[in-house]
Amino acid sequence: MPLTLQDCRTLDANDVLRPLRARFALPEGVIYLDGNSLGAQPKAAAACAARVVEQEWGQGLIRSWNSAGWIDLPRRLGDQFAPWVGVGPGELVFTDTTSINLYKVLTAAARIAQEDAPERKKLISERSNFPTDLYIAQSVCQEYGLELVLLEPEEIAAALQPDVAICMLTHVNYRTGAMHAMQEVTAAAHAQGILCIWDLCHSAGAVPVDLHGANADFAVGCSYKYLNGGPGAPAFVWAHPRLINRFWQPLSGWFGHAAPFQFTPDYQPAAGIDRYLCGTQSALSLSVLQCGLDVFTEAEPYGGMAALRRKSLALTDLFMQLVQERCQGHGLGFATPGDHALRGSQVCLTRSEGLGVDGKDSGAYAIVQALIARGVIGDFRKGDGGKHLDILRFGFTPLYVGFEDVWHAVEHLHQVLESGEWRQPQFNQVHAVT
Amino acid sequence: MPLTLQDCRTLDANDVLRPLRARFALPEGVIYLDGNSLGAQPKAAAACAARVVEQEWGQGLIRSWNSAGWIDLPRRLGDQFAPWVGVGPGELVFTDTTSINLYKVLTAAARIAQEDAPERKKLISERSNFPTDLYIAQSVCQEYGLELVLLEPEEIAAALQPDVAICMLTHVNYRTGAMHAMQEVTAAAHAQGILCIWDLCHSAGAVPVDLHGANADFAVGCSYKYLNGGPGAPAFVWAHPRLINRFWQPLSGWFGHAAPFQFTPDYQPAAGIDRYLCGTQSALSLSVLQCGLDVFTEAEPYGGMAALRRKSLALTDLFMQLVQERCQGHGLGFATPGDHALRGSQVCLTRSEGLGVDGKDSGAYAIVQALIARGVIGDFRKGDGGKHLDILRFGFTPLYVGFEDVWHAVEHLHQVLESGEWRQPQFNQVHAVT
Repeated sequence: MPLTLQDCRTLDANDVLRPLRARFALPEGVIYLDGNSLGAQPKAAAACAARVVEQEWGQGLIRSWNSAGWIDLPRRLGDQFAPWVGVGPGELVFTDTTSINLYKVLTAAARIAQEDAPERKKLISERSNFPTDLYIAQSVCQEYGLELVLLEPEEIAAALQPDVAICMLTHVNYRTGAMHAMQEVTAAAHAQGILCIWDLCHSAGAVPVDLHGANADFAVGCSYKYLNGGPGAPAFVWAHPRLINRFWQPLSGWFGHAAPFQFTPDYQPAAGIDRYLCGTQSALSLSVLQCGLDVFTEAEPYGGMAALRRKSLALTDLFMQLVQERCQGHGLGFATPGDHALRGSQVCLTRSEGLGVDGKDSGAYAIVQALIARGVIGDFRKGDGGKHLDILRFGFTPLYVGFEDVWHAVEHLHQVLESGEWRQPQFNQVHAVT
Repeated sequence: MPLTLQDCRTLDANDVLRPLRARFALPEGVIYLDGNSLGAQPKAAAACAARVVEQEWGQGLIRSWNSAGWIDLPRRLGDQFAPWVGVGPGELVFTDTTSINLYKVLTAAARIAQEDAPERKKLISERSNFPTDLYIAQSVCQEYGLELVLLEPEEIAAALQPDVAICMLTHVNYRTGAMHAMQEVTAAAHAQGILCIWDLCHSAGAVPVDLHGANADFAVGCSYKYLNGGPGAPAFVWAHPRLINRFWQPLSGWFGHAAPFQFTPDYQPAAGIDRYLCGTQSALSLSVLQCGLDVFTEAEPYGGMAALRRKSLALTDLFMQLVQERCQGHGLGFATPGDHALRGSQVCLTRSEGLGVDGKDSGAYAIVQALIARGVIGDFRKGDGGKHLDILRFGFTPLYVGFEDVWHAVEHLHQVLESGEWRQPQFNQVHAVT
């Protein structure tokens, strides 16, 4: 029997996480399915920003580095969030950007590999990894004489061979929502003496992550997606305690020094994850980020990550089922796996080339634009004209997306496709997209 | 004839820049002489932060990367500020931190030197340069096989020899307020084939800087001091157009790509300064920073940098004269040059070891603490027990510091010294200082 709107309302009524939706300021008339690109604004962020600007900065001035605890923000927020990715206090810091943190850990890994196994010359990753990861890897490979080998996901297991130094993967793929089995891949890599770096941009706060359980080596991730930390909020970085003190990372700024306020001319790296800090961080961005993390802390008594994961899968299951029931005959496919164990918190629809208004493109961009005009915000990711098709991407943040939202989103998609309104010229003018 | 309070009031009454002081939220009862560490809060920053959080993020969500222009902030703010350091539009971006930007330009310089003059093996700098600069230089030297040679300021001219690849200096010294002659040093370095990198942390917005006039090669600087961009606000980076496209910098993140939203797996650096961008930047921090830059834009009709410099020198002259007149006999000296051509926008007082309460330290820390307790905020920088004495540091931001402030600051210093109140135990307990 097909699902009904009433079924969705019943699911919302029974949703234990429902009270947390009120923590977010969501615009009227918008169904926001792009929290995997930029998370929604926690209501507390407005008062927090005002406090930091007017009280801490305006009144406290320089004194606030100590009195308002600005100096401790990277570590304090790291400790607050650490359990959500299965690491201990003092092991993770929020700082800089994902790209920069990846450079730090990739360089550390390259130096460890150079020392322990200089004959290993490959760094393997996924061809459709988020590009900035590949760009940073290109740079590190150039500096350390490594070869960057890009693979399809199904080729990775066989590629974990003794000629590989580092395996760098994004846990949940940004284009497909497919999730790697972190524990199995890490174990297979370690069995071959390969270091494993995980990018958690699309999994932190969205799916269960247990870095110690997986015995991972390094991890980075961003805070502006599922963590709702704000546009361009600081990223995080983690290194396994067994590796952390083996090398400095090359961005050896004063905040990574063992005694930054001694102002000594020689760099002495701090012990532990503090050595992955570099320059002065934005107290404003970090403070506002905390408002996002606080909602996770608040989610603990509601069942924590297990509850978030249950709801996330229920949301993505529902979306997939409704799309199958109601959007047949429009050339849509699923890039996201049906298997729960392989799925992140997003659903990506594919659309083949040649279905667009000009008979050449896929029309996926125009469909997304038509949905946005109706207040259903997802996003578009371009294919490569070959194996990787154009993508309509929809993220489901269980903290604030409801089941009725999913119903209406698919209803709008259905109408956009059936009516052909996506063919209108204004939806087919490509602008820069983020 | 000694100066009087009335003289100072007359100077304020005649100060053409006086209206700009009203742009800043300064706490009641505070004389703020630490704008060289963290600049004061522009009043506009409060409404700006509220707009970015509640409207752009909360209501606009992901759409604001385009509709609110977040994507252009690094370049747009760079173009706005470019004339204040003598560079053209499209040449400077605000992004990341000073430490990270220094890593980018130092690496680029090291690669250029490696290609053009591989026999040059020295990177010279000043021993009392701000430590993070030296730490980053240590890292780059290690990677590129260079030797970091640290010099006293008076040794630099003679050290500009053909064995030097790079000369990296901070224009105005953070400990002494002494300013290098950027044009002369750069010319002397170039005459020997040496690349010149300038750190403008203590000079951007504080003293006239003309990077093209000096024919500098690279520059970096921070925005949270004299630019009043907010705690930990994004830094800036500039590269001379003749060098900019010769190499990628190694932090080759997606925002430095020629076409970031094509999501291609290969890195292709953007032409120009955009290639010095890396990861996603905080739209909140950058937007708030603009409030600081806007005050500079507003200062243009009042005479711009020439007027700021005139007032800055008048303020530091006044402070030095009043300290000489009213604080004799307490073991204070001047680290800051009397010569205008050699002075930044701060005055640093020295105090010899052995004058403190325990007969070992200098008492400088306690004097600064006693001043802070009276609402006069400067800061303390520790000496090295040798050539570099303990420092009492006072910054004079001409946008908001007045001449009467200077009078009262010195009066408080006089009273703290004469009364001996700095000897009280609570001022002698050393905490972390920033």
